[in-house]
Amino acid sequence: MHSPGAGVTAIVPSWLQAPADVNELLPQLWSRTVGRDADGVLTVGGLSAAEIAATHGTPVFVLDEEDFRARAVAYRDAFADAFADLCDGADVYYAGKSFLATGVARWIAEDGLHLDTCSSGEFTLGLRGGVRPDWIALHGNNKSRGEIRAALQAGLGRIVVDSLEEIEVVASIARELGVVAPVMLRVTVGVEAHTHSYIATAHEDQKFGLSLAGGQAELAVARVVGHPELQLRGLHSHIGSQIFDMGAFEVSARRLLGLHHGVQREHGVELPEIDLGGGFGMAYTSEHQPLGPAEIAGRLAEIVARECLSQGIAVPKVSVEPGRSISGPSTFTLYEVGTTKDVALDGGARRRYVSVDGGMSDNIRTALYDADYSATLASRASTAPGVLSRVVGKHCESGDVVVKDEFLPADAAAGDLLAVPGTGAYCRSMASNYNQLPRPGVVSVRDGASRVLVRRETPEDLLALDAG
Amino acid sequence: MHSPGAGVTAIVPSWLQAPADVNELLPQLWSRTVGRDADGVLTVGGLSAAEIAATHGTPVFVLDEEDFRARAVAYRDAFADAFADLCDGADVYYAGKSFLATGVARWIAEDGLHLDTCSSGEFTLGLRGGVRPDWIALHGNNKSRGEIRAALQAGLGRIVVDSLEEIEVVASIARELGVVAPVMLRVTVGVEAHTHSYIATAHEDQKFGLSLAGGQAELAVARVVGHPELQLRGLHSHIGSQIFDMGAFEVSARRLLGLHHGVQREHGVELPEIDLGGGFGMAYTSEHQPLGPAEIAGRLAEIVARECLSQGIAVPKVSVEPGRSISGPSTFTLYEVGTTKDVALDGGARRRYVSVDGGMSDNIRTALYDADYSATLASRASTAPGVLSRVVGKHCESGDVVVKDEFLPADAAAGDLLAVPGTGAYCRSMASNYNQLPRPGVVSVRDGASRVLVRRETPEDLLALDAG
Repeated sequence: MHSPGAGVTAIVPSWLQAPADVNELLPQLWSRTVGRDADGVLTVGGLSAAEIAATHGTPVFVLDEEDFRARAVAYRDAFADAFADLCDGADVYYAGKSFLATGVARWIAEDGLHLDTCSSGEFTLGLRGGVRPDWIALHGNNKSRGEIRAALQAGLGRIVVDSLEEIEVVASIARELGVVAPVMLRVTVGVEAHTHSYIATAHEDQKFGLSLAGGQAELAVARVVGHPELQLRGLHSHIGSQIFDMGAFEVSARRLLGLHHGVQREHGVELPEIDLGGGFGMAYTSEHQPLGPAEIAGRLAEIVARECLSQGIAVPKVSVEPGRSISGPSTFTLYEVGTTKDVALDGGARRRYVSVDGGMSDNIRTALYDADYSATLASRASTAPGVLSRVVGKHCESGDVVVKDEFLPADAAAGDLLAVPGTGAYCRSMASNYNQLPRPGVVSVRDGASRVLVRRETPEDLLALDAG
Repeated sequence: MHSPGAGVTAIVPSWLQAPADVNELLPQLWSRTVGRDADGVLTVGGLSAAEIAATHGTPVFVLDEEDFRARAVAYRDAFADAFADLCDGADVYYAGKSFLATGVARWIAEDGLHLDTCSSGEFTLGLRGGVRPDWIALHGNNKSRGEIRAALQAGLGRIVVDSLEEIEVVASIARELGVVAPVMLRVTVGVEAHTHSYIATAHEDQKFGLSLAGGQAELAVARVVGHPELQLRGLHSHIGSQIFDMGAFEVSARRLLGLHHGVQREHGVELPEIDLGGGFGMAYTSEHQPLGPAEIAGRLAEIVARECLSQGIAVPKVSVEPGRSISGPSTFTLYEVGTTKDVALDGGARRRYVSVDGGMSDNIRTALYDADYSATLASRASTAPGVLSRVVGKHCESGDVVVKDEFLPADAAAGDLLAVPGTGAYCRSMASNYNQLPRPGVVSVRDGASRVLVRRETPEDLLALDAG
């Protein structure tokens, strides 16, 4: 193992090890078809990073279709299996907010997953991709009347109602259209889960949902049940993101099933479904050890079975909404290195700044959530030692960082390609044109072929909205 | 003054007062033509918020042309006046990264300001708007060869070189083109300024610039001076953003002029210019008391005159790069209110969540920088008391907050218009399509007329990049 030296050690995060081999690809960080060819060039889906860059330019999001679909199918099958003996199976809704394009929606449809959407823009992509309307859910704390109308007209399978006010809005639009709206109620269960910990007595200082503790959830149930235009499909909760700790789901499921049971007692209505939300974690760095779909499904099945047994109720059909844990690991961003620069830090440490041809416009997560990422040299293998590096973008902002800390080969230089894994979720979907930079395209690769899912913006696209 | 009650007081930020009148418009937060008409409706540029919403839809950025141009001209004149007796005047470069469109560039050209850009996309807008090429600067830690070539071909007035590597790149492209490239050198002076404080001994852990303390800046000077393809116009520093404390500029100017003097001594070259960067603060809330252009120019003239006198050198031509303090206060975002929701917090406090039809896609600054904003009811005046409110967007993310804390009228409800001031800088320029939301347009208003600067995206625009 290359020793980074005392000065550098002082600024290396505790989870980051100086690698024995800078060309190593940690399996948990890379999509399943990623490797290096005989020359050491990074490959994915049977194509080399160099070929992809030559064909599609940089920066570009490279989505490993086999990996994405395998993860989606693994969720579908794990939940079907785990819940097969308990109830009428379990549905997996892919959370399109993490990344969606018509081509992705087509995979979701072909592979038999449901789709979770947050806007008319998202469900439009789902419908374009051929997802069955009744397999699409619509979320949102402030859906417009237009979105609700379009959702009902398209026959979406569930509108997840988020507030008391929205009950009346959905009912009035359903009445206008002469339809019965299938709704779920988003319940704030007082559990807040993030990463490795959770709070079971979290107060409810957030914009989403109907408070269980405050009685709004029960009130909402009574109102929905009283509306002939509304069909209450079930209760819904979502407790956080990037969760590695299933204990939080145990508490939320218990509370949600308690209300589910209460609805049965008070209104004589046996709700057919329950949704436990998403938020399952993925690995951005060697620090993260996410659970797999089978483990998640198995644990949730145990939890739900035990709670239903203890409350003496039948197990409703369960659904979940994974997004990041399907799309995130499937994709890396391929950048070209521009300038590099070493800076001297306090205490004698040095940090290398490696600038790439994108930045916070294609990955705001590092700055927005103080997120960690990893990176590797993609255009070649290197025999140089690893040096502590920070991968930064080309924006005029000092916070424009893509990867805060990584050991990159000391000889990485202008013209090299760099790959940052785990960028499939919340990167392209949150991309901007900051500094008038065109947004990168998203290219899927499989079996030696690449296909554009979202094309790269051109300078002309940037001017399309400018009124001149 | 309406009393918010003990529970609420506990969660109100120290700078936020419950207003005596919820309809009050604090002058430091609003552009100069903003007021309320006889019915209490917010007006700007002779148009009511209701008219603007009816014509252009919501959300929309409303830019007060008179305000923007008055601020730009105030900077131009204040710097010309303050430096008139010291040197050949002073140039003001409007920092286009804060917000730029062809229409804005046209004002910059007509009003005799220079333009600071960070990419070919930005300088393209400047050239389209008629800004003289030699009045445009190009910044960036990782300019592409294509950008440098285009900048030299267009005849831009200064390329601000950011690294040792870039010196050779610019020189080689200038040689290819047979031109002499006018360059400045961005120097990291070891001063870090933010808001109300600064660090004069900051280490240099950032991607930008050539370190003064580490000797890179001197080395860069020697290399540039040795290149016949490069003409060294001067030294440049930029020390932070949202700065209210001129003391930081005193330290940075002293250090930069020290190097400027050193260049004269060592190379016999009297550099004609010096650039002190931007970062002048603006008011987002009642907490901020920014300095005006005259005060900033006066203080900088004093500082530069004193330093040059003490070093016994002539005063070079000074330039500065204000962006936020020109564009920021000129603009408010006009939203329509959707759902509202009260949540009970620990200790008996309550917070109202007011959801609007935009959010983190049109203003990422609240989440990204933990920034504070203000808001007022725009479609009418209200006689209701103010209640502590949080203005949130419609995105599927709990961090989707626009205004963390504001007292809004208790009767604000669905269908009302809400205006958030100070959104002219780094909001539209960093906007995304998160959750497949179309980005709002930017409309300038003046003398009772509105004009689209950047048109609103349509659902069709959202599909333009989707490969189907």
